[in-house]
Amino acid sequence: MRPRTSSFRASASRGSERQNSTMSENTYDVIVIGGGISGLSAAKLLREQGLNPVLLEARDRVGGRTFTVRNKETKWVDLGGAYIGPTQNRILRLAKEYGVKTYKVNEEESLVHYVKGKTYPFKGSFPPMWNPLAFMDYINLWRTMDEMGKEIPREAPWRAPHAEQWDKMTMQQLFDKILWTGAARQFATLFVNVNVTSEPHEVSALWFLWYIKQCGGTMRIFSTTNGGQERKFVGGSSQISESMQSELGDRVKLESPVCSIDQTKDLVEVKTVHGDTYKGKYVILAIPPGLNLKIHFSPELPPLRNQLIHRVPMGSVIKCMVYYKKNFWREKGYCGSMVIEEEDAPIGLTLDDTKPDGSVPCIMGFILSRKCRKLCDLTKEERLKRICEIYSRVLGTEEALHPVHYEEKNWCEEEYSGGCYTAYFPPGIMTQYGKVLRQPVDKLYFAGTETSTEWSGYMEGAVQAGERAAREIMCAMGKITPSQVWQPEPESEDVPALPFVTPFWERNLPSVGGFLKFMSVSTVLSLAVATGLVAYKKGLFPRS
Amino acid sequence: MRPRTSSFRASASRGSERQNSTMSENTYDVIVIGGGISGLSAAKLLREQGLNPVLLEARDRVGGRTFTVRNKETKWVDLGGAYIGPTQNRILRLAKEYGVKTYKVNEEESLVHYVKGKTYPFKGSFPPMWNPLAFMDYINLWRTMDEMGKEIPREAPWRAPHAEQWDKMTMQQLFDKILWTGAARQFATLFVNVNVTSEPHEVSALWFLWYIKQCGGTMRIFSTTNGGQERKFVGGSSQISESMQSELGDRVKLESPVCSIDQTKDLVEVKTVHGDTYKGKYVILAIPPGLNLKIHFSPELPPLRNQLIHRVPMGSVIKCMVYYKKNFWREKGYCGSMVIEEEDAPIGLTLDDTKPDGSVPCIMGFILSRKCRKLCDLTKEERLKRICEIYSRVLGTEEALHPVHYEEKNWCEEEYSGGCYTAYFPPGIMTQYGKVLRQPVDKLYFAGTETSTEWSGYMEGAVQAGERAAREIMCAMGKITPSQVWQPEPESEDVPALPFVTPFWERNLPSVGGFLKFMSVSTVLSLAVATGLVAYKKGLFPRS
Repeated sequence: MRPRTSSFRASASRGSERQNSTMSENTYDVIVIGGGISGLSAAKLLREQGLNPVLLEARDRVGGRTFTVRNKETKWVDLGGAYIGPTQNRILRLAKEYGVKTYKVNEEESLVHYVKGKTYPFKGSFPPMWNPLAFMDYINLWRTMDEMGKEIPREAPWRAPHAEQWDKMTMQQLFDKILWTGAARQFATLFVNVNVTSEPHEVSALWFLWYIKQCGGTMRIFSTTNGGQERKFVGGSSQISESMQSELGDRVKLESPVCSIDQTKDLVEVKTVHGDTYKGKYVILAIPPGLNLKIHFSPELPPLRNQLIHRVPMGSVIKCMVYYKKNFWREKGYCGSMVIEEEDAPIGLTLDDTKPDGSVPCIMGFILSRKCRKLCDLTKEERLKRICEIYSRVLGTEEALHPVHYEEKNWCEEEYSGGCYTAYFPPGIMTQYGKVLRQPVDKLYFAGTETSTEWSGYMEGAVQAGERAAREIMCAMGKITPSQVWQPEPESEDVPALPFVTPFWERNLPSVGGFLKFMSVSTVLSLAVATGLVAYKKGLFPRS
Repeated sequence: MRPRTSSFRASASRGSERQNSTMSENTYDVIVIGGGISGLSAAKLLREQGLNPVLLEARDRVGGRTFTVRNKETKWVDLGGAYIGPTQNRILRLAKEYGVKTYKVNEEESLVHYVKGKTYPFKGSFPPMWNPLAFMDYINLWRTMDEMGKEIPREAPWRAPHAEQWDKMTMQQLFDKILWTGAARQFATLFVNVNVTSEPHEVSALWFLWYIKQCGGTMRIFSTTNGGQERKFVGGSSQISESMQSELGDRVKLESPVCSIDQTKDLVEVKTVHGDTYKGKYVILAIPPGLNLKIHFSPELPPLRNQLIHRVPMGSVIKCMVYYKKNFWREKGYCGSMVIEEEDAPIGLTLDDTKPDGSVPCIMGFILSRKCRKLCDLTKEERLKRICEIYSRVLGTEEALHPVHYEEKNWCEEEYSGGCYTAYFPPGIMTQYGKVLRQPVDKLYFAGTETSTEWSGYMEGAVQAGERAAREIMCAMGKITPSQVWQPEPESEDVPALPFVTPFWERNLPSVGGFLKFMSVSTVLSLAVATGLVAYKKGLFPRS
């Protein structure tokens, strides 16, 4: 059960074994489409339950949106999904099963917040705000998003009491409504950019509030320590997928992009672009909703699903790793986390990506959303140059200008991802189409992190979705009951979650709107009293 | 050159002739993908210029989003695109070439506006508003949209002076900004629903304003007489496509859904789901942008195009034709055009669809956007029942409850359209991705009505785009110069355009905001004067 990353390629690849399957005529219980964490989790569970699955993957590798590259400069580097943290218990369970260890992302020294051309070191999850109005605004922002999130059912955001109203708004509109200060507004934009690699004006408020909620709230999603970015896998995240691939052996078919699914006969027929045909009793589509479009369906999909898959695009991000000779930022008292607010800076957020033993000093940074679209036509060298320049300014040292190596991955160019990290819902789509997101279509079942209800968009969500889809099929086969399909996950012993405690004054501080109202009411009252006094003294009231 | 609709199917279909092509090894100058009006126009022009094109169509028919059905109950009926009008000179030129005649949609008698449960007959393009504030609001709405449209370049809306600002807004936000009355707001919503089969909160203001502008403005797009709905083709709109198909003969391959395009060799290789391979020097993709996703590309598309095609969904509409024994509405003084504002009514807009000789009495109605998504799970019978009920209420007669026949087409269920009438741009997409909409990718060129700059979304736009893409390839081949690629079209002699004259008072009427400001300034001034007088009389001013 240990990963055998060096030997899997030959045994599981397409080609010589194309005609060789475990049942006659390439016939399986379940055909899983997509060899990311979700599809592999589904196939693994089905296999463990004694079923006979096959998995078709378009690329020449498993892992999907996780992608660990090994080379001498980096030892290993995660060009895709990498971070895990407390409450992500399913992916932690899988890692433990395969002996993949985690380590904490360095947050020993100070984080820094770069805004209006200045660097402010800080500790904690969010950069502090010093202007009192901005601070009130800022506290109110997190509080409002978390409060609104409480109204939204994880498993059915379209059923939230205010679903229609919130879905008709973009996050930009919500920010315009609740925020009073430029500082809070600018940080709120970065918060959307970092979390969902898209813009506040592109996403539905309902969807974004749901997204934050199903990750455990604003603190859990954004924090390094005790949050979504607490840890990474020693050796890289692809090991999880590679271990599952290894376990599944030649049931995993690489370079097998699916182009058609025919459900008109007894068995579902799945064809690849290269002309291979697989037959199965059931199919799991473990790919982003938008990539369902790569497949020609017979019969056609039902109208709402046929339209949904045109409506949920993937975000835009380039993940950039800059390598240095030494870890100069730690020497200066910085941990490597930078929150960068400057329109001309390519990078919005960084984290230390040095190896746990202190070797291979590296800073990981994201080129997010609008900046990704703007900078994707530059050369790799030009991007590196601009990244080093901003790091040099933020960290206040020209050492940042002398990288020894650079790795980057623009996920927008990946045909079989469509973008990263995950799909977003533009305004109006969740309430009109959300309900068909994981609704089976005859023998087709839907997995992929987008169909999850906890940490959707993350590796954790991929596992939840894959295992749930596998159990839906076991249920359809009569092997388990409907109540067994959705299963909670026990908490990881190694990575327990701590609650976030909000101080009394943060819970009770007024919003800027509330504060100003209070102030103006006080002012009006004081003025009224003063006016009354003056009027009385001047004898302006009629004396009866 | 006359349409031979009865004989084309056998000669042009896939199957026995699969291996039979005009050059060896299925090799062509240009492979056109998509047998709608755009692809056929491209192939026709290329053929006329002595080139050797082939056209691959996924369905078993040509016409794409136009679809004429012939049967004894209807004689013929257009279940898809049907209306043409002045300034649509390219499609009128094609129709004339093939001898397809047009006729005027009946607008002799009164149109009706149904609002708050009452029917108001009217004449002209837009229903009048009787409330003076609503009327001001309403006039200001058309004026504002047309004025904003003037700033937007047809061929590059992303270059408009306010492109970024307008693209970050939904149309709903713009309406909230400029409209003061519920009546105008409700009609504005219907205006978006009818024109682009989507909701004001779903679409970018920049995109929608561009869309209206490139159709010639609010009057041209919405009018029947002198506007986009002035006419239909005698015998149905599919005749245009069928005539082109007939002309192209066995170059048109039906039932040939394309699943891969390989540009890594000298000739581009195009493969269909059924395993046929075509080779060509160039390819034209004459399909909606979102349907590019049906194809696996080698090499992958550039990042912006790879993401654009996930971001421009097709609208939602069911086109419904209800047939009656007699034309009872005309007898009551109604022409058959109904503008219906009621949330529970399935239909938003109707037009008379009786044949030009008065036979086959029929009312055409659209189930639009949110209503389409809500009603698409009903049975056809249930939909017909609800439609007849609203017609009966609006026209004030129970005759509407007794249809003799019903035809409908839900375009949301069409895998190879994705919806109708056309693609829409959600907020933020036009400015970030618009510039790659028709940017060639090596040997791939892009047609389809969505890539047009005049009447995009209409049959006219399909012809413009197809012919432009054909000429782009002729230019790449050195047969014409770059300045010859984009060609203006002479005005149709048979269907000339009349200018729309806006009366002086409509041009100069204030907006509600302006009016209220004026009123409140007047009021404040009057009050100030009055207060001053009182104060003076009471001796409150210090006398120096």
